[in-house]
Amino acid sequence: MRDVAIIGVAQTKFGELWSNSFRQLISDAGLGAIEDSGVGGKDLEAMFVGNMSGGLFVQQEHIASLIADSMGLLPIPCTRVEAACASGGLALRQGIMAVASGYHDVVVAAGVEKMTDVVDATPAIATASDQEWEAQQGATFPSLYAMMARRHMYEYGTTREQLAMMSVVNHMNGAKNPNAQFRNEITVDKVLNSSPVADPLTLLDCSPVSDGAAAVVLCAAEKAKEFTDTPIYVRASAQSSGTIGLHNRRDITTIDATKVAARKAYEMAGITVKDVDVTEVHDCFSINGLLAIEDLGFAEKGKGGIALEEGQTMIDGDFPINPSGGLKARGHPLGATGIAQAAEIVWQLRGDADKRQVDGAEIGMTHNVGGTGGTCAVHIFGRDKN
Amino acid sequence: MRDVAIIGVAQTKFGELWSNSFRQLISDAGLGAIEDSGVGGKDLEAMFVGNMSGGLFVQQEHIASLIADSMGLLPIPCTRVEAACASGGLALRQGIMAVASGYHDVVVAAGVEKMTDVVDATPAIATASDQEWEAQQGATFPSLYAMMARRHMYEYGTTREQLAMMSVVNHMNGAKNPNAQFRNEITVDKVLNSSPVADPLTLLDCSPVSDGAAAVVLCAAEKAKEFTDTPIYVRASAQSSGTIGLHNRRDITTIDATKVAARKAYEMAGITVKDVDVTEVHDCFSINGLLAIEDLGFAEKGKGGIALEEGQTMIDGDFPINPSGGLKARGHPLGATGIAQAAEIVWQLRGDADKRQVDGAEIGMTHNVGGTGGTCAVHIFGRDKN
Repeated sequence: MRDVAIIGVAQTKFGELWSNSFRQLISDAGLGAIEDSGVGGKDLEAMFVGNMSGGLFVQQEHIASLIADSMGLLPIPCTRVEAACASGGLALRQGIMAVASGYHDVVVAAGVEKMTDVVDATPAIATASDQEWEAQQGATFPSLYAMMARRHMYEYGTTREQLAMMSVVNHMNGAKNPNAQFRNEITVDKVLNSSPVADPLTLLDCSPVSDGAAAVVLCAAEKAKEFTDTPIYVRASAQSSGTIGLHNRRDITTIDATKVAARKAYEMAGITVKDVDVTEVHDCFSINGLLAIEDLGFAEKGKGGIALEEGQTMIDGDFPINPSGGLKARGHPLGATGIAQAAEIVWQLRGDADKRQVDGAEIGMTHNVGGTGGTCAVHIFGRDKN
Repeated sequence: MRDVAIIGVAQTKFGELWSNSFRQLISDAGLGAIEDSGVGGKDLEAMFVGNMSGGLFVQQEHIASLIADSMGLLPIPCTRVEAACASGGLALRQGIMAVASGYHDVVVAAGVEKMTDVVDATPAIATASDQEWEAQQGATFPSLYAMMARRHMYEYGTTREQLAMMSVVNHMNGAKNPNAQFRNEITVDKVLNSSPVADPLTLLDCSPVSDGAAAVVLCAAEKAKEFTDTPIYVRASAQSSGTIGLHNRRDITTIDATKVAARKAYEMAGITVKDVDVTEVHDCFSINGLLAIEDLGFAEKGKGGIALEEGQTMIDGDFPINPSGGLKARGHPLGATGIAQAAEIVWQLRGDADKRQVDGAEIGMTHNVGGTGGTCAVHIFGRDKN
């Protein structure tokens, strides 16, 4: 199995991008990453794209062909990967396998979603849950995550204020990220008093509906230095599945797919959670950020809220989480998120993250969840190969 | 790069399967292939599923999680791959890369589509074309392929009767396939006199709307004999992209993606087209079967019609094509097709194809196209490793 490095990254601004089409967004991100990598057109051998629902959001499937065509990459193979909000993380993983296998030397892994071209994004997003057992019964994603939050509060005494801190820290960091959808700081009071969405979650506990794209260029590690002086190495790529429906889970305050993927990733990288300097977690709702802190092993089960309250997740805290602003503040164009997380970690490990830089970060991790935990991808990256 | 073998295959019956749900179909195929392979539950490490549009056909995305859950495979990673009608071929390719890379030893590659739960499948199918430049202007797939057929007739003197022979031979073979949607033989006259769909194509030039699923179990070649006495080896996996829109093509009587993928596949397998004993081609419309005969190199450009007319593609002909009945007679549940093609080739190379057996077949090939040629996957399989 060959080692793999990331040699280029790019992200469009995330937001309500009315004047950018689906194909424009992904082309901007893809070509941006290629430019950042210094790779010439002839070196690029394949592309993998994460996208949750081109079909329901922009009435376009077969998007990999559309993208290869729009970006002028014909005739290279281009493949779309889908796993709801973890589509980007899985596209990254397919790109890594393509290089690790020797099938390709240099590939792009990208993600894109254009969510604001429909009147209501809710029915499309709901297709990430079990359609027959959840969505058709009226369950939406805020309501599913609200149940997880309520149960966590009941089981562990987690407070409403602790949950709100996830959003507060995200906005604090997002304010420093030029590509973030929201760049305003908020307070715990503001989160608590924003519009109720699904009790106990309010508007400011929820990531937004976003348009955007991100891309990274992957290269066989042995060739990375031909293109860049600062390759960032893929230390681990792990993925796991959990029940798609919440009702089938042994415990709705734990995401087993996160735990399994994290365990595999630490093993593959030969590290423990203590070695991780910076992490991007999947905070589609504040409660999922809190669960990630616990399920990835940063805090004991039930203690995630305390960690948030004490500021341990801040950029200068014990284990910095979401320096990018996370899904809440950077925005959450579903298929793009897993790739944007990887791009942020690359910027952090290169020391290029400007005002949101985690000092001396050498090992970084991404955590990308589909649905309420039906899929989880965990990747670990390092300045050094091992 | 490790060699990869197929050690188990299965296919559900294809057809209008009103009483089988999406999750039931894929579970039946997946578990069937696992049973055929002799692999135990603990040996299985990952699954890849091709599906074009769970979102538009059954309002379900995140299908890989749903499937891992329904099949009782948790917590193994499960990944959906989409490339319109080539989704199955690309899922196969991702599975091959996962094993070739060393990430996994034993994986399932499957495909599924449930198309009959919507009143009209046409708008969903049209998302495989360029939505903005084709579908929104009223172009449907029969009309796009009709233009390709008309032009081929104009350029090369191909006759309506020659095109019809593609369907006649497919039905002749499908009649012998217990899993085929249509098992009745037809005549050239019957094709010519069936309902017009998009001139010159009639109903019997067009593959049907189908439900169904298929699966194969892939294994590192060095371990294949632990599970089966008759592994079939993957000799080549190649993929290429072409323009998604017909209007951007240099020549609409040639599918460049097929030509590029075929050239790569022959090179990888170290063979020429003359070495191929049996082939499954993507005859979504009769004209695409004819183009495949030319673009894969079985006949010179413009001579595909003559080859059909002379019976060269029959099971006992010079280069047998679609012993399964092809998309036309076996049926075409979009995401399942690429995998069903591979399953048929495995049965052929094992000598298990019963009345549709191509005598002494040792090397087989599959040709899976997305849209009008925006994506093409070509795989070559052999009884021997090389």
